[in-house]
Parts: sequence; structure tokens; C-alpha cells
Amino acid sequence: MIQTILLKNRPKGNPKSSDFEFVKDDKTPTVNEGELLLETIYVSVDPYLRGRMSDAKSYMPPFELNKPMKSGIIAKVKSSKNDNFKEGDYVMGMLDWKTLQISSGKELMKVDAEKAPLSAYLGILGMTGLTAYLGLTQIGKPQKGETLIVSGAAGAVGSVVGQIAKNLGLRVIGVAGTDEKVELLKSKFGFDEGINYNTTTDMKAAIAKAAPNGIDIYFDNVGGPISDAVLFNINKFSRTINCGAISVYNETELPKSISVQPFLVKNSALMQGFIVSNYSEKFPEAMKQLGEWLAAEKLTYTETVVEGFENIPQAFMDLFEGKNTGKMVVKI
Amino acid sequence: MIQTILLKNRPKGNPKSSDFEFVKDDKTPTVNEGELLLETIYVSVDPYLRGRMSDAKSYMPPFELNKPMKSGIIAKVKSSKNDNFKEGDYVMGMLDWKTLQISSGKELMKVDAEKAPLSAYLGILGMTGLTAYLGLTQIGKPQKGETLIVSGAAGAVGSVVGQIAKNLGLRVIGVAGTDEKVELLKSKFGFDEGINYNTTTDMKAAIAKAAPNGIDIYFDNVGGPISDAVLFNINKFSRTINCGAISVYNETELPKSISVQPFLVKNSALMQGFIVSNYSEKFPEAMKQLGEWLAAEKLTYTETVVEGFENIPQAFMDLFEGKNTGKMVVKI
Repeated sequence: MIQTILLKNRPKGNPKSSDFEFVKDDKTPTVNEGELLLETIYVSVDPYLRGRMSDAKSYMPPFELNKPMKSGIIAKVKSSKNDNFKEGDYVMGMLDWKTLQISSGKELMKVDAEKAPLSAYLGILGMTGLTAYLGLTQIGKPQKGETLIVSGAAGAVGSVVGQIAKNLGLRVIGVAGTDEKVELLKSKFGFDEGINYNTTTDMKAAIAKAAPNGIDIYFDNVGGPISDAVLFNINKFSRTINCGAISVYNETELPKSISVQPFLVKNSALMQGFIVSNYSEKFPEAMKQLGEWLAAEKLTYTETVVEGFENIPQAFMDLFEGKNTGKMVVKI
Repeated sequence: MIQTILLKNRPKGNPKSSDFEFVKDDKTPTVNEGELLLETIYVSVDPYLRGRMSDAKSYMPPFELNKPMKSGIIAKVKSSKNDNFKEGDYVMGMLDWKTLQISSGKELMKVDAEKAPLSAYLGILGMTGLTAYLGLTQIGKPQKGETLIVSGAAGAVGSVVGQIAKNLGLRVIGVAGTDEKVELLKSKFGFDEGINYNTTTDMKAAIAKAAPNGIDIYFDNVGGPISDAVLFNINKFSRTINCGAISVYNETELPKSISVQPFLVKNSALMQGFIVSNYSEKFPEAMKQLGEWLAAEKLTYTETVVEGFENIPQAFMDLFEGKNTGKMVVKI
């Protein structure tokens, strides 16, 4: 039996269970010449998927209603009529939220289960690690001795950003939403300082205290009030990597913030939207560097692994409640 | 008799006449060895001076209370004990708002009254032209066929930005505050489209109409609601030059705007604060290009010339009412 999760409704505000539909199919799919049959092993759930559930213009086309949701997936080749893949191979690709599916093999990448745990290819060695490394290096242009702050610091990308910045000799401050996460930033990921935005009343002052020399680089995963508070602390020539704005993705009215323009003018400061797919020519060099740091234990990661195909929508929705630490994946 | 204008009070909101003080002095200053005596001919008044009247941290130190105001000034050398200057020379520099003053000659630049009208060295061949050219080329990186929008389009910098963009083969839209200014953008400066923000109720739609292919470059002199409306029309990889935020300089409470972060993320878009003094190594090449265009009549300019030393504060205050077209200067 094949299970599939369709997009049923375009969410208004927070996505709800009723925005998804589960369908079942008893027919075993036919594998034609050149195709392969894939069994889903791990499904990545990511904040950016929220954008594709709306029909607003964005950097990726919206999901279609009553069609399967898609995300990064690790799958096992069950059978193959494609010369590039054989039964038992593990592959990664942007695939449908289905337990079993046919693929042409295009845009699939083989992954090596011996070299790293399979789920790592959805995280530290996949889009997560690439986003952290390339956003930081290509837009942030970090210099030893500078100060970096990262929001969503205990999240998948944020925890890697902070570690890379430490490897490059920066002072690193992380903003997260619970004391446990803040503790983890320091104990596990080696951050210099952590700030719990849920218990801090004056974020502007807290950042100033944690960054006595001001902020040179802001890796922004969240937008909203945290980003407002950072603005007051940016240095001349500071760089902000706008990687995500999870705090406002579910807003139904246009969110308002402090006007950034006067701060940018005053500080000759830069803000730039970052999408990892624009930097694909840099992927090999980035994966090499990430792999080296991982092997040298200069990079570690956490995952939140949810079990069961039926829990994919809930795992996705939990992202917006900050229920994950590190990369959120669903094991089928 | 020497007249001087001092900063009397740090303005709250809009600057007022009472924030300035006029003082008179009958003593003729002594010119010591190495010095020169300067007679003020033209005084530049510019929106950025508002920032220096406050004591907030910014890219230039604040003016001191009870000390002379300063800005770009063209002066004539009345007498000289400095080998680099002789009586009758014209010079440009950041000088005091005084009718007559002593200078060490440091950071003064000689200007040629034969080559261009003296006031042009405060405008098209001075900081105004350099700001337009370097902001546009260094951050905007214009490509033939792209669409540019400029706010404060009939102002000193804006009108030059639009003309340069036309010279480089772009589609150019200007936003200004009166029908007369909008008309001037098209008839005198060769803009493709003009929008009067004071009579347009839906700026977002008006920009979309004027820019059917979307906005690739936004040269932002104003910030505020106009900049909010531009956001909805930016293209993937668009660049915003944050050159000024005149619409909010006099706000006493922190201005709020639509959150820019989601727009930047969605469009891999860039915003960067621009201050011309950071690009001084590019001044010679920029002045050469501006001079060539001026000579070839591919660049024109307007000035608003106010007469009389006593009118400097009012001319400055009029900037915030949009009473100038092009560069505002005061002739002494």
C-alpha cells in the first residue's frame, strides 16, 4: 500500500492538519525502462515549505492543490531499470511525500550510508550545512575577530552557522527560545553567548551586553522583533544574511518592523536575501570543507527525529513552535 | 563684519529657526603663516546635515552646540600665506557657516571657475554627482535593459541618478512630490515615467504599472511608505541603494515600515547603505565620467539658488518640505 500526503488547502496563518490530506493506493506502480522505484526513508521538513504552500510569487513555484507535498527526501532504490542506479542504493532528491514512488533518476544524488548517517545528508551535509556555510561565507564575508549573531540559533541552520563562525575565529552569539536551547548553544556548539528571547525583556540591551564591540555579521533566520533589536547594535559595514523570516511566515497581515533604511544608511550596512540554490557552483567546495570539519570533530549537529509517515504534517507544524532542536526529519 | 551661524539647539523633529543662532564679530581675523583667508561664495545645504545636528552615533560626528554649522562651501581666497593657494583662487571644502574664515588649506580643493559654474562643484561635479554615480554603479551594478526606480527623483541626487541610468540604457521611473516635478523628470531629465506620491493613492499599483518588468534597482533617497511600495515590485536579485531616508529624518519616534526581510529572502535581493565618502578612491574616475557626460550634454542639472547668508537656515529647512528642485545652494 502506498501512502501520499497532498496539499488540501492553502493555509491561512499557521498550517493546520486539515490543510493536508492523506490518500492510500493499493496498486503497485510499474517501473518502466529508465525509471526506478524508490522507498522513502527520511523526509526533511523545513520552514521554507510554508512559502510554497501559498500561491504568492516566490523563489520556488507554489505547490499545487490536491498534488503531493514535496521536500528533500532520502530514499532506497527498491528496483531499477536505470543504469545509473541499482537496487539497494540510497539517493537524495526533492521527492513527493509518498511512501513509495517512481523516479526518472533525474536530479537524484547518490549518498553513501557508510560515510555518514543517512539523515546527515538532509542536514549538515545537505541543504542545511550548505546554507549555513555559503550564506555565511558568500554574503557575510567573515573576518577573524569579528562578532556574529545568529537568530534561530538552535535550529538546523543556526547551530551550524555558529560553529562555522567559531572555526573561522569569530565571537559568536546565538538567540534561541528556551533556556535549554541557550545552554546547548554554549555546551554543545561552542557559542560564546546565548540569549533567550522569550525571557529577555530588553533584547537591544541584551545584545549590546553580549556584543561589546557591536555586531559585524547577523545571520537572520527569523526576522521580526529580534531583527529589530539587532539593528541597534550593528557596526559600520555590517552584513546581514537574510536567510529566513520564520517569525512572520504565518502572519496573515503584512508584518511591520522598525524601518531598516536609516540604520543601513548610517552604517553603510548591507542586508541580502540568501537562497542556497543560487550558489550551486559552490556546493562541491562547501561539502568538502563541511566534510573535513565533521571528520575533524570541529562540527557537530543535532537532529530531532520524528517517527512515522503519518507524523510528517505535525513535524512540519512543530517547526513554527520551535519544538525542534537542530534539523527536523521524519523517519519512515 | 563677520557673520557666523551656530548650532544653538539640537532639533526635536523638524529643525526650527530657533535651533540656529547668528553672531557677528567686527574683528578682522589675522592670517598667520601657512593660512589663508576665505570669503564664502556658495553654501551647500543638504539633508544629511540633519543627522549631524543630533547627537546620535552616525557616520559623521555630530555638530557641537554653540559652534558653527558646517557644510560644503565654495569660497574665494581673499589673502594667502600658504604656497598652495593665491589671492583670487576659488576653493571647495567642508567649511564653517561664516562669511569670512581662516583656513589651514588642508582638505581644500581648488575649483576652476572657467570650466563650470562655481555652484556646480557643490552639485553635479561635487558630492551630488559623485553620490549619484558611485551609488548607482558600485551598489546598483546597472545592466542595460534593466528597470530603475529612484525616490526623491527631482532632488539633487535623484535627478542625476535618473539621467545616468538613462545614459546606461535602463528604463527609469522617478517618484516626486508635485506634478511640476514629475513633468520636469520627463521633459528635462529624460525619465521614462514619473509618479507623484502626493496624488497617487495606490503607490504599489502605480509602480507596477510604470515598471511592467518589475524593479531591478531602487535608488532610495527617502525611505518610508514609498520604499514600502517599491518592495512589492522588486525582482529577483534586485539591488537597493539606501542613500538617504529624508522622509524619516525628522521623526522623533522610531519609524515603522513593512518588514523587508521576507521580501529580501524571497527575491535574493540586496539593500545596502551608501555613503559617498567610503568610495573616495573612485572619485577621479567618477568626476571624469560626469565631466564627459556634462560636456556632451548627456547630463543636465537644476539648482535652487537662495540668496543671502541670513537665509541659510531657512533654505536648509525648506529641503524637508521638498521646496527645492535639484541641488539647493545659498549664494552669499
